[in-house]
Amino acid sequence: MEITKAAQKTREASFKLAALDAKSKNSALSAIAEALRHNASLIVKANQEDLARAGRENLAAPLLKRLKFDELKIEAVCKGIETLITLAEPVGKTLSALELDKGLELFKVSCPIGVIGVIFESRPDALVQIATLCLKSGNAVLLKGGSEAQETNRVLAELIHKASIACGVPENWLYLLETREQVTQMLALDKYIDLIIPRGSNSFVKYIMDNTTIQVLGHADGICHIYVDEYANPEMAVDIIIDSKCQYVAVCNALETLLVHRAQARELLPVLKQALDERQVELRGCSETVKFIQVKQAAEIDWKTEYLDLILSIKIVDTIDQAIRHINNYGSHHTDAIVTDNKIQAALFLNLVDSADVFWNCSTRFSDGFRYGLGAEVGISTNKIHARGPVGIEGLLIYKWKLLGKGQLVADYSGKQARSFTHKKLNKECDV
Amino acid sequence: MEITKAAQKTREASFKLAALDAKSKNSALSAIAEALRHNASLIVKANQEDLARAGRENLAAPLLKRLKFDELKIEAVCKGIETLITLAEPVGKTLSALELDKGLELFKVSCPIGVIGVIFESRPDALVQIATLCLKSGNAVLLKGGSEAQETNRVLAELIHKASIACGVPENWLYLLETREQVTQMLALDKYIDLIIPRGSNSFVKYIMDNTTIQVLGHADGICHIYVDEYANPEMAVDIIIDSKCQYVAVCNALETLLVHRAQARELLPVLKQALDERQVELRGCSETVKFIQVKQAAEIDWKTEYLDLILSIKIVDTIDQAIRHINNYGSHHTDAIVTDNKIQAALFLNLVDSADVFWNCSTRFSDGFRYGLGAEVGISTNKIHARGPVGIEGLLIYKWKLLGKGQLVADYSGKQARSFTHKKLNKECDV
Repeated sequence: MEITKAAQKTREASFKLAALDAKSKNSALSAIAEALRHNASLIVKANQEDLARAGRENLAAPLLKRLKFDELKIEAVCKGIETLITLAEPVGKTLSALELDKGLELFKVSCPIGVIGVIFESRPDALVQIATLCLKSGNAVLLKGGSEAQETNRVLAELIHKASIACGVPENWLYLLETREQVTQMLALDKYIDLIIPRGSNSFVKYIMDNTTIQVLGHADGICHIYVDEYANPEMAVDIIIDSKCQYVAVCNALETLLVHRAQARELLPVLKQALDERQVELRGCSETVKFIQVKQAAEIDWKTEYLDLILSIKIVDTIDQAIRHINNYGSHHTDAIVTDNKIQAALFLNLVDSADVFWNCSTRFSDGFRYGLGAEVGISTNKIHARGPVGIEGLLIYKWKLLGKGQLVADYSGKQARSFTHKKLNKECDV
Repeated sequence: MEITKAAQKTREASFKLAALDAKSKNSALSAIAEALRHNASLIVKANQEDLARAGRENLAAPLLKRLKFDELKIEAVCKGIETLITLAEPVGKTLSALELDKGLELFKVSCPIGVIGVIFESRPDALVQIATLCLKSGNAVLLKGGSEAQETNRVLAELIHKASIACGVPENWLYLLETREQVTQMLALDKYIDLIIPRGSNSFVKYIMDNTTIQVLGHADGICHIYVDEYANPEMAVDIIIDSKCQYVAVCNALETLLVHRAQARELLPVLKQALDERQVELRGCSETVKFIQVKQAAEIDWKTEYLDLILSIKIVDTIDQAIRHINNYGSHHTDAIVTDNKIQAALFLNLVDSADVFWNCSTRFSDGFRYGLGAEVGISTNKIHARGPVGIEGLLIYKWKLLGKGQLVADYSGKQARSFTHKKLNKECDV
């Protein structure tokens, strides 16, 4: 009930926020940065409470590191906000303009989606980034951070809300959820929430996707493949495989399954095994792979597993077509790469593999909003509609159709004496 | 099981169809038109069976009219196919091109969504239109038409499939479902189907939306409003109201609730009542409305009802803000219009009303793909993501990211000696 009411208020705020001018939003963003800097000691104090509790609860070292939010990190998120201010206003852009008839003009105009529900990991920086990205794009937001960061998140959300409403942003545009139960309740509120963006473990994202009728933007699995083609340069292949598998092992764009054309197997596999042995990568090979190198035999489940660990499954294929079929069948439609010197093979792979990101001769790890030059990243989507792959601020936008007339009636465009539509492209912006 | 297998095969075909060149698709479209013309008597014969059965089952006259598919209608759909052929190829367009670094180029390229499930009404023309629109946009499709048109649909689907695969379109790209049970089974196949487009009654569309985790494009309700502002020209208001309510009463973009500023009520309502009485429109007014004209009193349920009939609910408001709140609260985010001579009020309304189509001084009935110049209409969407309002062929498209490198590794862009990204806009098309 409490969450329903909060979501309803957030929705009400969203209508006004959608119409807020660029200047007000940017001055609110400035005020938020100032409030964060000015209250740094308050934030750090709250964060130390979180860190102390996490210490008592024996949180793992990498998680503690992510949880820590000190003056340096505060300064970094404030710099991020300042970059956001310099971005062009994303709302109210005329995307197309068409004269339907003399004095009847149709404009397709960018606008925010409305109310976004974001569930994110333990880093408190994520709260600031998501909240300010939503503000810039005119979206109201329900936020749920990691419970480890609860004190820090509470202070941050309060500071952001207070600083922004002082600049004319509608009250209740941002609401902080604090329990998993509240998240479950939120999933039923399709009347008030337009889009859910879940970030976190695959099982959690899958749970969200399976338990809401609200649209979800994101990805559960990241089962990424590299296919070493018959025409590949084997040295390049080894380098790309090592980078894709080992550069950062616990992320969604890391390599999980390697497909090797039979013609490459005898030469490539022993060299590769040595290089991956040195990096403690466990190999699991298909029944053909084990004829070339001594590795554990892969089971059917291996082709469907996102290890997020120093494990790589390897399969030998006889044709590029077999490789593409394997990827489309077992992959998660995230990021898949081909290594080949043959452009025709590359084109075949890029056009037939049904994934958000299809790469030729480079590491799967490039699949990322920052590397793609998108600025702040909303998430990586394996959806097939709206937005795909790394998603920047444009993933938080949609459009509405504005039709400006002078009293026109459809009756005049129907029947025997019907007026015709001119459908003439206009070269102007919508000014209403 | 049968449907699962069919969907799986359709999905397999979709990968190849996505990569099919424009020439092959266009020659397949030509072949389809030829096959339909050449087999017109076969189609008409099947349709006569449907008509005879429908007659025995006492189908209503308007439905019989929609079901009828004669040589004239066959010729009309063939003309539609010929228009489709002349459209520019929608797949493979470079939407953006960015150099990430020397020799590492990122392209955002349009591509089909994949497998679409379309459930449509009794008109057999819809089958041809949807199938050919999917083919042009490179999407495979599962089709379910009205059961009244079963014989006609079967013949049409067979002719289309046969003519297209003879031109190199992958087998199984199109599959015809024949029962409601099969539709229910289809809703669970999120592994094979990327998007469902349901057309039909609100309760049916709502059922689909609530019973699948597949993305759905469409709309359930069309509760459209007109707000007659304090600064409206009352004569224009009456004309627009009559057109919006009466021009075609059973459609989603027809007017259901009228909001009248108090300052207009005394003059406008009696004139309006007389005009609507002449057209047999039943009026239901709020407790204020009944003080100005003698009408039945509206209940809470009226504000939430899509009548699709000669009934109009009327509410008097004191401010434009109250009108906007009513629309955002009770509306279906489809199409809403303001009548006013004041541009500031118009802008307020257009920017604060959270609907796909927001109109100033014209009939709500303009909300339609043909009138919007979109060509063939896929449907009208009240979603807040992907596509909104009338949706043309672009609603069947998404994009993939193609990254073309020369062996680049992410390791080289990390750490102390990190290379920087150039993120330089490129002015070229992706040629792979």
